[in-house]
Amino acid sequence: MKTITKKITALGTATLISMLSISPALAAVDPEVDYVFNSLLFLVGGMVVMFMAAGFCMLEVGMVRSKNAATICLKNISLYSIAGIMFYLVGYHLMYGQANAYWGGLDLFWGADDAGALAGDIEAGGYAAGSDWFFQMVFCATAASIVSGTLAERIKLWPFLLFTAILTGIIYPIQGSWEWGGGWLDQLGFSDFAGSTLVHSAGGWAALTGALILGARKGKFLPNGQIGVFPGSSLPLATLGVFILWLGWFGFNGGSQLALGSATNAIAVSNIFINTNLAAAAGVMAAMATSQAVYKKVDLTMALNGAIGGLVAITAEPLTPTPGMALLIGAVGGVLVVVTVPLLDRLKIDDVVGAIPAHLVCGIWGTLAVPLTNAEASFSTQILGIVAVGVFVSASSTGLWLLLKNTIGIRASEEEELLGLDRTELGLEAYPEFVAR
Amino acid sequence: MKTITKKITALGTATLISMLSISPALAAVDPEVDYVFNSLLFLVGGMVVMFMAAGFCMLEVGMVRSKNAATICLKNISLYSIAGIMFYLVGYHLMYGQANAYWGGLDLFWGADDAGALAGDIEAGGYAAGSDWFFQMVFCATAASIVSGTLAERIKLWPFLLFTAILTGIIYPIQGSWEWGGGWLDQLGFSDFAGSTLVHSAGGWAALTGALILGARKGKFLPNGQIGVFPGSSLPLATLGVFILWLGWFGFNGGSQLALGSATNAIAVSNIFINTNLAAAAGVMAAMATSQAVYKKVDLTMALNGAIGGLVAITAEPLTPTPGMALLIGAVGGVLVVVTVPLLDRLKIDDVVGAIPAHLVCGIWGTLAVPLTNAEASFSTQILGIVAVGVFVSASSTGLWLLLKNTIGIRASEEEELLGLDRTELGLEAYPEFVAR
Amino acid sequence: MKTITKKITALGTATLISMLSISPALAAVDPEVDYVFNSLLFLVGGMVVMFMAAGFCMLEVGMVRSKNAATICLKNISLYSIAGIMFYLVGYHLMYGQANAYWGGLDLFWGADDAGALAGDIEAGGYAAGSDWFFQMVFCATAASIVSGTLAERIKLWPFLLFTAILTGIIYPIQGSWEWGGGWLDQLGFSDFAGSTLVHSAGGWAALTGALILGARKGKFLPNGQIGVFPGSSLPLATLGVFILWLGWFGFNGGSQLALGSATNAIAVSNIFINTNLAAAAGVMAAMATSQAVYKKVDLTMALNGAIGGLVAITAEPLTPTPGMALLIGAVGGVLVVVTVPLLDRLKIDDVVGAIPAHLVCGIWGTLAVPLTNAEASFSTQILGIVAVGVFVSASSTGLWLLLKNTIGIRASEEEELLGLDRTELGLEAYPEFVAR
Repeated sequence: MKTITKKITALGTATLISMLSISPALAAVDPEVDYVFNSLLFLVGGMVVMFMAAGFCMLEVGMVRSKNAATICLKNISLYSIAGIMFYLVGYHLMYGQANAYWGGLDLFWGADDAGALAGDIEAGGYAAGSDWFFQMVFCATAASIVSGTLAERIKLWPFLLFTAILTGIIYPIQGSWEWGGGWLDQLGFSDFAGSTLVHSAGGWAALTGALILGARKGKFLPNGQIGVFPGSSLPLATLGVFILWLGWFGFNGGSQLALGSATNAIAVSNIFINTNLAAAAGVMAAMATSQAVYKKVDLTMALNGAIGGLVAITAEPLTPTPGMALLIGAVGGVLVVVTVPLLDRLKIDDVVGAIPAHLVCGIWGTLAVPLTNAEASFSTQILGIVAVGVFVSASSTGLWLLLKNTIGIRASEEEELLGLDRTELGLEAYPEFVAR
Repeated sequence: MKTITKKITALGTATLISMLSISPALAAVDPEVDYVFNSLLFLVGGMVVMFMAAGFCMLEVGMVRSKNAATICLKNISLYSIAGIMFYLVGYHLMYGQANAYWGGLDLFWGADDAGALAGDIEAGGYAAGSDWFFQMVFCATAASIVSGTLAERIKLWPFLLFTAILTGIIYPIQGSWEWGGGWLDQLGFSDFAGSTLVHSAGGWAALTGALILGARKGKFLPNGQIGVFPGSSLPLATLGVFILWLGWFGFNGGSQLALGSATNAIAVSNIFINTNLAAAAGVMAAMATSQAVYKKVDLTMALNGAIGGLVAITAEPLTPTPGMALLIGAVGGVLVVVTVPLLDRLKIDDVVGAIPAHLVCGIWGTLAVPLTNAEASFSTQILGIVAVGVFVSASSTGLWLLLKNTIGIRASEEEELLGLDRTELGLEAYPEFVAR
Repeated sequence: MKTITKKITALGTATLISMLSISPALAAVDPEVDYVFNSLLFLVGGMVVMFMAAGFCMLEVGMVRSKNAATICLKNISLYSIAGIMFYLVGYHLMYGQANAYWGGLDLFWGADDAGALAGDIEAGGYAAGSDWFFQMVFCATAASIVSGTLAERIKLWPFLLFTAILTGIIYPIQGSWEWGGGWLDQLGFSDFAGSTLVHSAGGWAALTGALILGARKGKFLPNGQIGVFPGSSLPLATLGVFILWLGWFGFNGGSQLALGSATNAIAVSNIFINTNLAAAAGVMAAMATSQAVYKKVDLTMALNGAIGGLVAITAEPLTPTPGMALLIGAVGGVLVVVTVPLLDRLKIDDVVGAIPAHLVCGIWGTLAVPLTNAEASFSTQILGIVAVGVFVSASSTGLWLLLKNTIGIRASEEEELLGLDRTELGLEAYPEFVAR
């Protein structure tokens, strides 16, 4: 029950408080029916969040050059696999320490919680432990998905996967435990509904430190100060990826309500859907307007990242904003994406897909925006949480990247990078029949 | 409750009447459980309908030439965004006038209806107002998606988006209010379960008037009477799009039952799934057979549009037909697609993706077919509804297209069209590495 | 109720028995609510299984050469259509003989079962007959999807579709009836939860016999013993296909619990999700590790088929394994894929997408693995079921392939194969603008 308790506490806004104060009158739903609804929310929500792995894959494969397209596909399917395995073996245990009782090696999910359910001792707000595990696991995988795009086209496969294993098994769960596991950030009142900080900026910090240590792609930042442009090989696939991510985000944010089995929760999930959609829409339009104003042209990749920026921004608090505020929060996200991309170039940070603007910067923005609509959150605590997660993930990622760099090496050779990782790492081509320019 | 009442009234057939006459015996489901089920139907159904935006995008990007592929992607993601914003700001209010009470600017969805629910005053058949809003919004977006494909490769970006804003904010909601908002068409007994007319032919009329005013692509209709063939750049992506649309249609039609929380409704949604699937399947096979018979070859694009034609045809009444009738209704849709495509060519109407045959023609057919299985519908009223919507959407769209044409202009220049909109509007290429013929 | 009874019997393991022995205490869920939950599981599960048709299509179109890409798309959308129609007209009737009473030509789904529900006579464990039909139909379509990939690039369109019609209308349903229809295999205690044998190896046998009778593609097995390599034209689309299949598998295995409306069932479905995901993840990693060890390179296509191999392997019993056992079962599946692919080459069997290793071999493995975790299953009965299905599907498929071969012919001419089926069968190109090497 830990997770649920946490999130409901975190929600506390005028709106929700008033909801909760009325809810006793609604407590008529049979506890077992409630239990099934809650589990179903996790399962259906988890399915579409799982599909976000395909969304990240398509976005990234569309944004890399064709000579690295197969490798990025392999990285995406294997990072999702590793995340699931590591979260099972280690991560869930670390993140939900209170879940200790259920931890018994291979018998993890046939443990205490559901045994209670099976014995008929079902309390309101319950859910199948396995459905919660599945939902939490796909969140962990999402954090890892953010990293692969930034570091594409130059990082070697196996070191990247080793990093992923530690990120998903240890780094992500530890910082996640601070809030969703009921740890110190949660106790201080930090508020992060579905993970603008815990998932998106965490992944963003891991990506940023990786980009700094790995260095830019050859030819990206030229000695004369010019910036090389490496356009993505398939913008239609990148667009498909963003649509898939958008779809998955309804599960990401809606499922984070963690309960569905009452009118109160059904209303909450519905309002979350609306806010999630409006923030994304506003992110698209704001990114388009900004790029039209600044560059006199609309850039499709900006619009795509604007959608993600809006989605990431609303993720810290998709419940309490009015739809109008959701539009505003998302729009700021879209603008931030457009202004941050050239900033990264100026800092000579090479982020192949724009994950740092969309996930890190907008994740920070979204977390800061929580107190605008949620009276229980405070700016100081939000900043504390952002900084704490930033410092921890950056420090641990930096250490890990440096360890990998100084042992097995993380970067493909200049020749491999020139030929493309598909040929050198996999010995194949993603589009073997098509003549690349 | 308005919407629900409307649709249930519209269903009235021998089958459903007998269902309803028995239903009192089933009214045992707890109203709050019913409420959650109904909301869940809207949310899950709405999610897959939302994903239809990706389906339209993939279908269209696969059917245009590569030089316009990025632009069509941008149009699709931005039209979906605009539809959501405009339906929030204006459209929902216009369409569901009775929802007036809930309308309070930014507080739209924290209004009367759910307050009732929160106060414990939950009546059977209720649902979270936000879940209904989400479901209605994705329908609005679907209507807009139909237009972009027809006008691809020659319409300028911003005028198209302006048109989209008015279509989704004003035109679609007004005609929608006539039926689903409880207006005069509804009161006359017009029957359109999930929108063959209100969504698909409405979008089709907007597309047709646009095609007429915008004119054909250069080289499409040659002075010597020959017809230029511009094959789509990626039939695999077009196929993916149709599969996504097919998936989304289960939400489109199934969710339009508007209720799930009873055995009666679960049976109805299930039968709708079956009929939707069989109509699509019959559309595919009928289009294949017809093109084999007429052209001695099977055309993949005909099969794809046959699926859509079958789906659109069953949308006006997916509940009352027997599966055999669903096969028939879908098959006629598939045949109509194959015979209408060359007809448009003869009329020198340039419809890049075949949206007019699939959505407009089959939308009319499906609406006309309702009385075949639904005794409460009459041919005369169905024709009245088709004509009323056709006249209103055509007239208002024509006015709007002409206004845009004579002010900011809607058509790319001949040179821009030759170079492709990706380069001239966006300054990029969708597939920059691949050598186009 | 037949199907449900069957599956629940089949589950019988120590774990489940203990579940069931407790369940009376939980039998408090209102039967009508249970009915809605169960129907919803079929509908939502069926939707994502339906989407597996898109997954197969993308996987196959990514693995064939571009000159056959449009044809494989057409085969996939038409085979899914035919499966639905044939399962309606014939297959469901054959497979669920006990459903006889409901069979009345076109009135199939307005029959006895749901009439009972409508009359208020709803018993616990019930569900809308139509939801079950939809769920069973998409399983039938899955079996057919397996065949198209193996035989791609050389089989003619219409003979393939004729085979599909018989496979989905007669062959699949007959062997399915032996187990899921309550037939002799079921009565002997054969255990196949979601169809490792009944769906995947059945499809695999049909594919294998087709490959043997059709022969290899020209140039695949050269006279000098060398093996021609025909790399797939779009590995990104193949990757997308596998992600879609992975998504769909949650519906495939989770929905096969056949019930959701109690804590017991919610727990079971949740655990199935976990096991399904972990088996797939282990399949990916095991295939990657094996190919790294054997070939010193990681092959993306092996990783992709490793996912499918893991998924197929867990399909026979996704409920009773601990997560650790699920990892093991999936990992063996991944290894089997990597070792079987070259074996097929040695046997001169040309399987374009690797469906025989993934679906047939791993389907056998998964079925054999059931007794490892399910005490009610025995190796001897599992072997009996595998052999019986193998003999029946192989024999009937062989007869059908030979009949087709000796009448209308099944194989494209050498010239057609050289030009590609897109040009010769459809008269178009999948990627007309791109210059193939």
